[in-house]
Amino acid sequence: MPSTPAGNHSSNAKKVLFNDSNEIIFSNDASNSAATTNYGGAAELKITKFHSQPMPTGSTSHQVVANGKFPSHPEGPLRNPAINGLKDKRFDTFKTWSGKLERQISNLRGKNREDTHDSNPQENIEVETLPVDRYFDALQGPELDTLRPSEEIILPEDKQWPFLLRYPISSFGICLGVSSQAIMWKALATSTSTKFLHISPDVNLALWCISVALVVIVSSIYFLKVIFYFEAVRREYYHPIRINFFFAPWIALLFLALGVPPSISEKLHAALWYILMFPIFCLELKIYGQWMSGGKRRLSKVANPSNHLSVVGNFVGALLGASMGLKEGPIFFFAIGLAHYMVLFVTLYQRLPTNETLPKELHPVFFLFVAAPSVASMAWANIQGSFDYGSRIAYFIAMFLYFSLAVRINFFRGFRFSLAWWAYTFPMTGAAIATIRYSNVVTNVVTKCLTVILCVTATLTVTALLVTTIIHAFVLRNLFPNDIAIAISQGKPKTTRRWFHRRSGSSDTTIKHIEHYLKFADSEEKDIEASNESAGKV
Amino acid sequence: MPSTPAGNHSSNAKKVLFNDSNEIIFSNDASNSAATTNYGGAAELKITKFHSQPMPTGSTSHQVVANGKFPSHPEGPLRNPAINGLKDKRFDTFKTWSGKLERQISNLRGKNREDTHDSNPQENIEVETLPVDRYFDALQGPELDTLRPSEEIILPEDKQWPFLLRYPISSFGICLGVSSQAIMWKALATSTSTKFLHISPDVNLALWCISVALVVIVSSIYFLKVIFYFEAVRREYYHPIRINFFFAPWIALLFLALGVPPSISEKLHAALWYILMFPIFCLELKIYGQWMSGGKRRLSKVANPSNHLSVVGNFVGALLGASMGLKEGPIFFFAIGLAHYMVLFVTLYQRLPTNETLPKELHPVFFLFVAAPSVASMAWANIQGSFDYGSRIAYFIAMFLYFSLAVRINFFRGFRFSLAWWAYTFPMTGAAIATIRYSNVVTNVVTKCLTVILCVTATLTVTALLVTTIIHAFVLRNLFPNDIAIAISQGKPKTTRRWFHRRSGSSDTTIKHIEHYLKFADSEEKDIEASNESAGKV
Amino acid sequence: MPSTPAGNHSSNAKKVLFNDSNEIIFSNDASNSAATTNYGGAAELKITKFHSQPMPTGSTSHQVVANGKFPSHPEGPLRNPAINGLKDKRFDTFKTWSGKLERQISNLRGKNREDTHDSNPQENIEVETLPVDRYFDALQGPELDTLRPSEEIILPEDKQWPFLLRYPISSFGICLGVSSQAIMWKALATSTSTKFLHISPDVNLALWCISVALVVIVSSIYFLKVIFYFEAVRREYYHPIRINFFFAPWIALLFLALGVPPSISEKLHAALWYILMFPIFCLELKIYGQWMSGGKRRLSKVANPSNHLSVVGNFVGALLGASMGLKEGPIFFFAIGLAHYMVLFVTLYQRLPTNETLPKELHPVFFLFVAAPSVASMAWANIQGSFDYGSRIAYFIAMFLYFSLAVRINFFRGFRFSLAWWAYTFPMTGAAIATIRYSNVVTNVVTKCLTVILCVTATLTVTALLVTTIIHAFVLRNLFPNDIAIAISQGKPKTTRRWFHRRSGSSDTTIKHIEHYLKFADSEEKDIEASNESAGKV
Repeated sequence: MPSTPAGNHSSNAKKVLFNDSNEIIFSNDASNSAATTNYGGAAELKITKFHSQPMPTGSTSHQVVANGKFPSHPEGPLRNPAINGLKDKRFDTFKTWSGKLERQISNLRGKNREDTHDSNPQENIEVETLPVDRYFDALQGPELDTLRPSEEIILPEDKQWPFLLRYPISSFGICLGVSSQAIMWKALATSTSTKFLHISPDVNLALWCISVALVVIVSSIYFLKVIFYFEAVRREYYHPIRINFFFAPWIALLFLALGVPPSISEKLHAALWYILMFPIFCLELKIYGQWMSGGKRRLSKVANPSNHLSVVGNFVGALLGASMGLKEGPIFFFAIGLAHYMVLFVTLYQRLPTNETLPKELHPVFFLFVAAPSVASMAWANIQGSFDYGSRIAYFIAMFLYFSLAVRINFFRGFRFSLAWWAYTFPMTGAAIATIRYSNVVTNVVTKCLTVILCVTATLTVTALLVTTIIHAFVLRNLFPNDIAIAISQGKPKTTRRWFHRRSGSSDTTIKHIEHYLKFADSEEKDIEASNESAGKV
Repeated sequence: MPSTPAGNHSSNAKKVLFNDSNEIIFSNDASNSAATTNYGGAAELKITKFHSQPMPTGSTSHQVVANGKFPSHPEGPLRNPAINGLKDKRFDTFKTWSGKLERQISNLRGKNREDTHDSNPQENIEVETLPVDRYFDALQGPELDTLRPSEEIILPEDKQWPFLLRYPISSFGICLGVSSQAIMWKALATSTSTKFLHISPDVNLALWCISVALVVIVSSIYFLKVIFYFEAVRREYYHPIRINFFFAPWIALLFLALGVPPSISEKLHAALWYILMFPIFCLELKIYGQWMSGGKRRLSKVANPSNHLSVVGNFVGALLGASMGLKEGPIFFFAIGLAHYMVLFVTLYQRLPTNETLPKELHPVFFLFVAAPSVASMAWANIQGSFDYGSRIAYFIAMFLYFSLAVRINFFRGFRFSLAWWAYTFPMTGAAIATIRYSNVVTNVVTKCLTVILCVTATLTVTALLVTTIIHAFVLRNLFPNDIAIAISQGKPKTTRRWFHRRSGSSDTTIKHIEHYLKFADSEEKDIEASNESAGKV
Repeated sequence: MPSTPAGNHSSNAKKVLFNDSNEIIFSNDASNSAATTNYGGAAELKITKFHSQPMPTGSTSHQVVANGKFPSHPEGPLRNPAINGLKDKRFDTFKTWSGKLERQISNLRGKNREDTHDSNPQENIEVETLPVDRYFDALQGPELDTLRPSEEIILPEDKQWPFLLRYPISSFGICLGVSSQAIMWKALATSTSTKFLHISPDVNLALWCISVALVVIVSSIYFLKVIFYFEAVRREYYHPIRINFFFAPWIALLFLALGVPPSISEKLHAALWYILMFPIFCLELKIYGQWMSGGKRRLSKVANPSNHLSVVGNFVGALLGASMGLKEGPIFFFAIGLAHYMVLFVTLYQRLPTNETLPKELHPVFFLFVAAPSVASMAWANIQGSFDYGSRIAYFIAMFLYFSLAVRINFFRGFRFSLAWWAYTFPMTGAAIATIRYSNVVTNVVTKCLTVILCVTATLTVTALLVTTIIHAFVLRNLFPNDIAIAISQGKPKTTRRWFHRRSGSSDTTIKHIEHYLKFADSEEKDIEASNESAGKV
C-alpha cells in the first residue's frame, strides 16, 4: 500500500512530490527517531514511509509545501479518488479563475469555512510578487530562461504544460520581425535610390497583410493567456528580461502603422498615434521609474541589451508621429528616448559587474544595440525635415555597432534558438531601412551596394528564422517548451533542505541524508529515478 | 596635583582628553610594565586603576566616551562648581576666535608651555579635515543628517546649541524657493501666452522684494556663522551632501537677477554676471575636480541627487547671461553644465551600489532631477534665440522626469521635514517657468492648461512649505534642530576601544576587557552603568 | 661545491633561480622528509641542497620552470661552459625567429625528436596570451609599468635587455608631441587672429620635417621590434594601457597630414585619408568590441584616461577628412568618436571602483581628457563649415577640463618621467590650436591672450619634455629602461610557494619555511642575499 502514493508521485509530479514527501517524512522522523535508529536504512525508510501515510500527499498542497508554506488542512493520502482531478489542479496557481473566482462564488454560496481557509496559502502565492532576486538566483542564461541545477520549479517538469502557459510574451518578436520587413519592402518600393531594383509594392502589401494576421493571432492568444493564466502573465511582467518584451506588442502596432501599404491608406489619423503611444508612455513611466527609484530593479542591476526594446519604442513612435505630420509629440518621445538611450548605452557599454543579467558573452540580443540609433536617425530626419548631421550621427553610430557585431558573428553561434531571436533580428531590418533613407540623400554606388547588402542580409535572416521557427513548430514540435522562467519557486529550495537537516536527529539518518543530498545536487533527473527505485524496493 | 590636568580635561576637551588620557595611561603603563609584571593581573589592574583614579570619572566625560547619551545632569560627582563655566566652553572647538586666536594671543604673552601643549589635541581637531568616510560611517538618512546609533558626537546632545551652530547652509534653499517664484510670476505677468490670466506685475515685485530681504537675512546670518563658527562651516563644506548647498547662495543671487521686476531695472550690467559667475566657477573647479580626481570624494562614491545643485548653476548662469545679451560666457557655462549633467544623469540613473549617499527610496531631493533640464531648455532658447529643437528636447526630458516623479508622489510621504526641502522644490517652479516659455512658442489649450497646472502646483508647494516652515519656526520651535551632521567625532568610537584592548598586557585584564567589550557591544546604555559600578568598586 | 650554483644564481638570474631551486628542493624534500626531520635546520638545508644538485639549474630552463613548465632535458649545474651562451638564449622567448623559425628549419632537417620536445614549453609561452588579470596583478603604477614586490619577471632584471625589447610603443608619443606642434605653428602662421604675432611659416616647415624624420625613425625601430621580438609586441598589445598607444602611430600620421606645410602641398589626395583611417577603424572595431563584449577587457575593468587615445583618432580623422573636403567619412568617424567619447567620459568621471587601471591620483595622463573635445570642436567646425555652437560646446568643455587640471598642477609633480608623457602633453597643443581657431571667430583681447598663453604653455611643455628626454637619453642613459611590463610571468609566484608549503611535512621545517616566507614577503632583495648567505654558511 505505501507504494501506491509513490507510484502516483512518480507519474505526474515527481520532483515536487519527491521533495515534499522527503521533507515531511524526515521532519516526522526527527520527532520519533529514538525509536527507529536501531533499524537499518531500508527499514527506517519503510517505517518513515509508513509514518508518512497520514501526511498530505494531495498535489495542490504539496505544491504549497514546496514553497515552504504548510497547508493547515491537508487532504489525506487516502482520498485517492481526488488524485484523478489532480492534472487540472496543478496549474491552478496560475489560473485566473479557478482560484479567486471559484472561491468567491463558493464563499457566496456559504461553503464551510475550513475549505476557504485551506485555499488561503494558494492565494498568497498568487498575490505575492516574486522578488527580482529570485529570478536572478533561480535562472540563468542570457535570456534568464534556464533553471539553475539547484533550483526547483512549482509546475511539473516532466510533462508539457497547457499551451497558454508555455506561450511567452516574446512571441511578439515574430510580429516585430515580419512587420519591420513590411516597412523595409515599402521603403524599397517607394525610395528613389532603390528605383533601380524595381521592387513591386505588392511585396509590402503581402508582408503587411501577413503582419496584420500575425499580430492579430499572437495578440489574441496572449490575450487568452492574460484572461486564463493571469499569474503567469504577472510573472512574465516581473521577469527582468521579459518585462522589456511588453513593449513589443505596441512597437509591432507602430510598425504596422509605419508599413501600411500606400494602396490601403495614404494618411493615418493622428488619433491613432496618441492611442498607440499611451500604453508605451505608461510602461515607460513604470520601467524608467524602476531604474531610477533604487529598488531591486534599479538599472545597475537589471541592465541588459533587451532594455533597448524599452527605449526603441520612443524612436519608433517619434518616427511614426513625425511622418504623420505631428510635431511636439514626436519630439517629446524623441527626447525621452535620447535621454534614456544615452543612459542605457553608457551602462551597457561599461558592463558593470553589478549587471547581473548581462550575458557574459555576445548573443543575438546585442543586435538590439543597433535598433535605437537606426530608428532614431530616421525619426530625427522626419522631425527635422531632412537627413541632417544629427540623423547621420545616429545612423553612423548604428552602422558602426552593426559592423562591430557583424565581425564577431562567430561568437553568436551555438546558442539555443528561442522565439526571442525574432526580436533580436528586427534591428537588422531597421538598419536596412535607415540605409535606404540614407542612400536617398547620399546616392552613390557605395550606398546603393550597402542598401542591397543590408536588405538581403535582413531578409535572409528573417527567412532563416522563419524556417527555423517552422521546423521547431511543426517538425521538432518544441517551439513552445515549458516556460521554466515563470514557474520558479518562491523560496530557495536549499534553505528548506538545510533547515530540515539541522532538525533530523540521529547521525545515521544524517549521513543518509547527506548522501542523498549529494546525489541530488549531482543530477536531479537521476535522483528521481533513484528515489523511485528505493521506494520500489520497499 | 594629578587632579589638576584632569579637571582641566573635563572642563574643555573632555572626550578627546579622556581617550587620550586612557591611551596615555596605558602607554605609560607599558613603559614601566617591567616593574609591574610580577604582580598578578588584578594587582596590575589595581595599580592602573590607581593611576587612573585621579582621572575624570565625572559622568559627562563618561557620556562622551560611551557615546551615550547620558545624563543631562550628573556632571562630575565632586567638582560641581567647575561645571558652570562649561556651558560656554563646550562649543569652543567650533568657534573661530576662542580656539586659535586666544591661544595665539596667550602664546604671545608667553604663557606656560604646558598649557599650550595641553590644548594641542583640541587644535588638531580644528585643523584636521574629517575624511569623507567618517560622514558616511557616522551619518545616515537621505540628507546624511541623522546620527547612526553606534556613533558619538562631540557636542552636547542634551541641550540646544547656539543658534549659529544649528543654522545650516541649506537655509539658502528658502531663497531659491521664493526667488524662483518671483521669476515665475514675472514670466506669468509678461508672457503673451499667459496674458489671459491677467497677472499683475506687482506680484513679481512683492515676491522679489521678499526674496531680496530673505537673501540678505539668510546671507547675513550665515556670514556670522562663517565668522564665529568657521569650523562648523568647514565641516558643512566637507559634508558630501551639504557641499552642494554652497552653490545655493550664488544660484539665489542669479535668480534675483533673473527675477528683477521690469519696474526696477530693464537691463542689468554685464559685470554683474561676471561677478556672480566667478564663485560658481571656482566651486565647480573644486567639486568637479574632486569627482574626477579619484580621492575619497570621487563621483562613484558621493553621487547624490543634490549634486544637481552643483550643475544647475551653470544653466541658470547661462540663462541670465544669454538674457543679458552675452554670448560666449553663457555658452561656456552651458557646455560645462551639459557635460557634467550628462555624467551626473547617467550616474544617478544607474544607481551604482557604490553611491553611498544615494537614498534607497525616492525622496523630495529627486525633484532636483527636473531643475537642470528645465533651466537648460530656457538657457539654450536664450542662447540660440528661439525655443528650438534643442530647447524642446531639454524641456521634454524635464517634463518626463517631472511626470515620472509626480506619479510616484506617494513615495515621498512620511519624510521628516527639513529646510533642504526648499531647495528640492524650486525645480517645480523652474519647470513651470519653462512651461510658460514653451507655451509662448506652442500656444494651445493643452500648453495653457499645463502652464496653469504647473504654476498652481509650484505655488501651492511653496505655500505649503512656507506654512510648514512657519509652524516649525514659531509653533514647534524646531526649525533649526541641533545640526548633528557637523558634530560627528573624528574617529570611530569602537576602533579606539579595540586598539586600546590590544595594548593592555595581562591576560586577566584582557579577559576583563573582553567581557567589558562584549557588554559594551551588547548595549551601550547598560555599559555605562556597569563601568561606573566597577569604577566604584575599585 | 654546492656554493657554485648559488654563486651562479646570484650573478645572473637571482630571483627566478632562487625560487626555482627552493621549489625543487622542497618538493624533493617532501618525498623523503621522514628521513631528514631529525636533522637541524641547517643540516636539513645541506641535505636538500645536496639533493638539489642533480636538478636543473641552467638558467634557460629555470625561466621555464618559473612558468610552471618543466624542461625535459635540463642542463645540469655542472655544465658551466654552457652559461656563456646564456646571454643570447635568455631572450629567446620573445624572439620571433629564434624560437619558431629555427625550430621549423631544424624540424625540416630532421633533427632528433627530443630536441623539439624540449623547446615545446618555450613555444607554449609564446602562443599563450597573458590574461589581462595578470597585468593587473603583476603591475602597478598609473601606467602599469612597475612590478609589484611579490611578482617575478621572466627576463633577467639585473642587466639591460636588448634595445628593441626595451623600446616601447609609447615612443610614438614623441611623434604626437612634435607633429602637433607643427600643426600649431602652421595655424599660428596662417590664422588671421594671430597675424599680429608675425610667425614665419618656416617654423611649421622645420617642425614638420623634424616630425617626418621622427615618425620614420620611431616607426622603423618599432618595425624592427615587430620583426625580431614579436612576442614582446604581442604582450604590449595585450597590455591594458599600452594597447591604446597602438593608435599613436596612425594619429601621428594624421597629424603629419594636418600639419603639412602649405609650401609642400596645398591639397592632399582623398585616398590618403582612407588609407590612414583604415587601420584606426580596424583597431576600433577590435577595442570597442572588447569593451562591450564582456570579457576580461570590458570597459568597467580597463577604463583609463589613456583610452582617450583610442577615441581621439576619430576626431583627428574627422578633422583631416573634413579639411580635405570629404563629407560622409568625417561624419562617420565623428559619430563613432562622439558615442564612445561619451561612454568614456562618463565612465572615467565616475571613477568606478572596478576600474583597476585608473590611477588613484592625478597624473599627466589626465591631460588626455582635453584632447578629444578640443580636436572634436575643430572637426565639427570643419564638418559644419563654421565654428558654431556645437564646436563651441566641445571647445569650452575642453577649456574647462584644461583649467580644472591646470589648477591642480601641483598634483602632477613627483612622478617618474616616461616616454608616455609625450602622448600626455599633445592635448595641450591641441587645446592651443583649438583656441587659435576659436580666436579666429571671436577675436578680442581675451581670446588673443588666451591663444598666446596656451601656445606658449604648449611650446614650453614640449621643450621641457624634449630637454628631459635628451637628458634621459644621453646623460642619464635611461630613456629606455627594461620594459618590465612585457616580462611578467604567466602565473602568480605566491600561489606556487604556498602550495609547496602545504606539502612539506615536518613541523620543524614548516616553521622554518614560515619564517623564510615572512622574510620573503618583507623584502625580496634582502631575502635573496640572506639565502645566499645561508647557502654560503653551509
